[in-house]
Amino acid sequence: MLWRRFRPEPTATVVRREPGSATKLRRVLSTVVGFASDTAVRADGEGRYATQIRPGWDVVGNANGGYLLSVAVRALREAAERPDPVTVTAHYLSPGRPGPATVTTEVVKRGRTFTTVAGSMDAAGKRLLQVLGTFGDVSTPMGPERVEAAPPDLPPPDACSAVEPTDTFPPPFMGRVDLRLHPDDAGLASGAPSGELRVRGWFRLRDSELIDTIGLVLAVDAFPPTAFNARLPVAWTPTVELTAHVRARPAPGWLRCAFTTRFVTGGFLEEDGEIWDDTGRLVAQSRQLALIPRG
Amino acid sequence: MLWRRFRPEPTATVVRREPGSATKLRRVLSTVVGFASDTAVRADGEGRYATQIRPGWDVVGNANGGYLLSVAVRALREAAERPDPVTVTAHYLSPGRPGPATVTTEVVKRGRTFTTVAGSMDAAGKRLLQVLGTFGDVSTPMGPERVEAAPPDLPPPDACSAVEPTDTFPPPFMGRVDLRLHPDDAGLASGAPSGELRVRGWFRLRDSELIDTIGLVLAVDAFPPTAFNARLPVAWTPTVELTAHVRARPAPGWLRCAFTTRFVTGGFLEEDGEIWDDTGRLVAQSRQLALIPRG
Repeated sequence: MLWRRFRPEPTATVVRREPGSATKLRRVLSTVVGFASDTAVRADGEGRYATQIRPGWDVVGNANGGYLLSVAVRALREAAERPDPVTVTAHYLSPGRPGPATVTTEVVKRGRTFTTVAGSMDAAGKRLLQVLGTFGDVSTPMGPERVEAAPPDLPPPDACSAVEPTDTFPPPFMGRVDLRLHPDDAGLASGAPSGELRVRGWFRLRDSELIDTIGLVLAVDAFPPTAFNARLPVAWTPTVELTAHVRARPAPGWLRCAFTTRFVTGGFLEEDGEIWDDTGRLVAQSRQLALIPRG
Repeated sequence: MLWRRFRPEPTATVVRREPGSATKLRRVLSTVVGFASDTAVRADGEGRYATQIRPGWDVVGNANGGYLLSVAVRALREAAERPDPVTVTAHYLSPGRPGPATVTTEVVKRGRTFTTVAGSMDAAGKRLLQVLGTFGDVSTPMGPERVEAAPPDLPPPDACSAVEPTDTFPPPFMGRVDLRLHPDDAGLASGAPSGELRVRGWFRLRDSELIDTIGLVLAVDAFPPTAFNARLPVAWTPTVELTAHVRARPAPGWLRCAFTTRFVTGGFLEEDGEIWDDTGRLVAQSRQLALIPRG
């Protein structure tokens, strides 16, 4: 959630869509980019994976945290040799910029059900992420079920506010994902924040790319910060730590997402995320701890 | 949260307190045990710390997860050379039993504000925990404050239900901490669960030992599982992963604690914890992912 809100305050003109241009650009790029290819990793020696931080996934030059984590998790998953990230945690140490990167992994335990892998991501001589993940298979629902929550109530995607990328806010990263904000929460992009520490909306990848359980790791950090909807003097909210739990594989289609914050205290805030698939099933939960530097 | 509920179902007779005996035992032990001393670590070479998993912190023989994590976090904190665990995550790999243990640490980054340390805990030739922590100083409140929640409403500690240890349920670990359950949530120990996925109560260490920010890491895993209050076929809920965020240093005195679960799905449940100090300040948040093997 490395979003930066620039002064002067973003206004409606900043997010004005120029009809055709963004769509056209995406169409040109769609043959060569995509989430899966832009997070690809290549084995490069014992426990090491080579990768590229691709341009376009950034927020004012720095790669989105969910994107970086998706790359790292893809490498850890290779090492784990199990299909799904059940729980992954990243500590964010330095911002990432486009260019070559390395993910180093260490398989800590191969158990009957899970494999746990520790790892790190380095680029340009800096440690970007320290990561810990446990991998398994979440394809088969099992055990008792009880859910004390409901998916967020959202108008249909076309009745929500599409978030289109700009060089500043919304950031370029928005060109890689398709976000539709709940109308009540969309004012954060136009200088009319709701006042509530909440952001809800739809998420999918561009060009109908299917979302697997690594895509969920992207989704949990893809929305504008809840703090932008509260009238707090917060210009950006760099992530200290993010943990995602993947509870099921998502059905194809849009994901319903809700992010809330309850505690802005001590210079930190947490942001809790819930991702539901189009069948009404919870597929991921997340919590991140972010810093709140003054704007 | 490695609690095990034994068949036959626990009943009121299981938790019957034998007046005097537990208190007397505690008084005898209080000169030699305590949370700080029972989680002590000793530097033992480059990044290595020697420790002992002490008896009495167990749940039917296996050390409580918050206790194990507290030991590991104490070692990581030594390596970090910063006072408070801001965010710590552990993946639980094997149960721990009393005896010598080693915590191995690697300082990943020393920044201006935080130090991040990766680590692991081994005992008896097995990896018990893999840990990742970022350490800083949470003694000085700073930044904007906004709280969209309130501490749990609890009757005074003496009007709540004291949880006294037995060899099975409640487990021996309860002799090391002083837990007072909200009367509405206390039925889980007497075969009359509330039906709600919630456990609330007071927490303190025995013998008026002060709770520091490592003590909070113990508190977030000290309560009986929420699942025991729901009428689910769950005999125990082994933790896969636990993350704790420490938001402030607690004032001396009782801690108000609330644990809730919203999603029992796919063979997993999450348990969210909030710890508030006696001044009404949130001091820690936690979330753990636990397995729900059938009972």
